Amino acid sequence: MRILGIDPGYAKTGWGVVESTGQLNRPVSFGVINTMPTMADNDRIHFIAKSIGEIALAQQVTVCSMEDIFFTKNVSSAINVAKVIGAAIHQLSLQSIEVKLFSPMAIKSAVTGYGGADKKQVQEMVRLLLGFQTIPKPDHSADALAAALCYAVFNATQSRMNSV
Amino acid sequence: MRILGIDPGYAKTGWGVVESTGQLNRPVSFGVINTMPTMADNDRIHFIAKSIGEIALAQQVTVCSMEDIFFTKNVSSAINVAKVIGAAIHQLSLQSIEVKLFSPMAIKSAVTGYGGADKKQVQEMVRLLLGFQTIPKPDHSADALAAALCYAVFNATQSRMNSV
Repeated sequence: MRILGIDPGYAKTGWGVVESTGQLNRPVSFGVINTMPTMADNDRIHFIAKSIGEIALAQQVTVCSMEDIFFTKNVSSAINVAKVIGAAIHQLSLQSIEVKLFSPMAIKSAVTGYGGADKKQVQEMVRLLLGFQTIPKPDHSADALAAALCYAVFNATQSRMNSV
Repeated sequence: MRILGIDPGYAKTGWGVVESTGQLNRPVSFGVINTMPTMADNDRIHFIAKSIGEIALAQQVTVCSMEDIFFTKNVSSAINVAKVIGAAIHQLSLQSIEVKLFSPMAIKSAVTGYGGADKKQVQEMVRLLLGFQTIPKPDHSADALAAALCYAVFNATQSRMNSV
């Protein structure tokens, strides 16, 4: 199974593709989609969603795992990220690719075993689990790979439970 | 110019199409896109965006005017509506239809002349300005027609200013 992890953002959206056999997870590719503040707001949303669709197609992913947004202090920035998430869900649905949303806490918990882990601990576990020499850069890609790993863990657990 | 007004929502998204010559605005059609709570969250977002795209195509609209979301007490509901807005922006961008977002206050102000007007006053002005015998129902359609009228006023003002 090929999982596209997404760390959605307005200026920078991280993405990372992981090939998963359930037990074994191997990195395929990762990167960041950048939009400039000089672009119109709607164009940024459209560009990010279109790019995610192109990556999903090029990397032949089977499923997408995306970090969701819940409560936050900065409501206006959360609303912008939510617009990006909605646009990405719609684009991937047009391509018949299932999107699974996970809370930041669920991702931390799946990757490190602890929902209160800090950013650095998550990134170090991403490095270890995917066999990187150093933490993948930029941070947004590492966070996207963490989202992909979260789905791999979630799916492996579900398979085990179904086989009991 | 044919304007598609949208009052975005998770359960009910109002829409209304207005034909505008700048001075004269005439209603073309209006309605509501419903999604059921039994649908998966992602499917609701995808369905609403796809439906907006189909309405825009069928009604041959030239531009879309959408009520934006800003600050709110209920952050989690605002985030859902923001996802719908993002998905709709992306769908209409795929169809090369420009989307203009207006704050609720800007819409009230354009339609009634007063940004603090209540819902009833806005709907009564929609009725008067578009020559309806009674207020268009349900409320979400009337709000969508108000968004369309807001763009008509905005555009007429811009044209006047450009011709000075």
